[in-house]
Amino acid sequence: MKALEELVGLLTRLPGIGRKSALRVAYHLLKTDQAYAEALAERIRGLKSAIRFCSVCGSYAESDPCPVCASPARDRSTICVVEQPQDVVTIEGAHEYRGLYHVLGGLISPLDGVGPEQLRVDALVARLRGGEVREVVIATNPTVEGDTTALYLKRLLEPTGAQVTRLATGIPVGGDLEYADRLTLARSFRGRVRL
Amino acid sequence: MKALEELVGLLTRLPGIGRKSALRVAYHLLKTDQAYAEALAERIRGLKSAIRFCSVCGSYAESDPCPVCASPARDRSTICVVEQPQDVVTIEGAHEYRGLYHVLGGLISPLDGVGPEQLRVDALVARLRGGEVREVVIATNPTVEGDTTALYLKRLLEPTGAQVTRLATGIPVGGDLEYADRLTLARSFRGRVRL
Repeated sequence: MKALEELVGLLTRLPGIGRKSALRVAYHLLKTDQAYAEALAERIRGLKSAIRFCSVCGSYAESDPCPVCASPARDRSTICVVEQPQDVVTIEGAHEYRGLYHVLGGLISPLDGVGPEQLRVDALVARLRGGEVREVVIATNPTVEGDTTALYLKRLLEPTGAQVTRLATGIPVGGDLEYADRLTLARSFRGRVRL
Repeated sequence: MKALEELVGLLTRLPGIGRKSALRVAYHLLKTDQAYAEALAERIRGLKSAIRFCSVCGSYAESDPCPVCASPARDRSTICVVEQPQDVVTIEGAHEYRGLYHVLGGLISPLDGVGPEQLRVDALVARLRGGEVREVVIATNPTVEGDTTALYLKRLLEPTGAQVTRLATGIPVGGDLEYADRLTLARSFRGRVRL
């Protein structure tokens, strides 16, 4: 069936959806009401035009500047640096951080030919020029690229006078020593804190 | 972000897609080209109008009768009875069966208030009236409902003179005795075959 196969082919290009999941979704669509299919199609079509990038921090937003950058309630002395726009949504979900954000749009990765000039690094430096920012929290993932980027930013930003920090790496809450990998365990030792 | 939340809300109504998967899909859509989003939206919107039910066997098809029912190459003396239209696609994928199909549209389940009159049982009996069909292969799942439905059909159809058979139940190919559950093991003993 051509219509089914075409839909399945498009669905399998989405992340985390293989052929079996795509078939399940397609069969589900065949069984549910057409109003749902129309609504889903409309949201998929309209998503990109409804959501832009904030010109200040670079995260996804429906307005520019985004609600975080525009809010008088946020702490303007702290900027959290993340890799991608969705990281902002993830961190906001934890309800812990009250400062501003800056999205790099990627990580430094010489193997993939990505250097600082491909990222929103200049814009970050420009935001620090006013002298209002006293701390930059680097929240890149604890991977080779995330570490490289963090180290690069530390060297670049420290001369501005702002303190550069990084999110703690270690055993996750509720985790088990037995199941922690060697690298995580080593990092949790190096980063141990006084009780 | 309203547009994102609305899309995520609709996506989580699909089978096998939780909130995290829905967010991944939404972020992916934000990053990919709009042409892909348009194509996907169009296929979702148009699926139900492109695919109907075959009036003979009840399976999904773009033409009526479906290619299987219309094909002169299929063995018209055998009908394979399945629960849902997608079971036809699954069985066709195995390239083993060359007969016709009949979709029940469900299984007998007194607890859910589903009796034979809610299923396409009368249409099956009518197809057997010509006397051309010599075997009915029942391919319902080996569950309580699938077993009940198989037994009901056996009693109903045997007076027509057609032989009623059922797909074999047992240890899957490549499976391991150690991991087979007790019921599967018991069934594989009862259904043992001479070598």
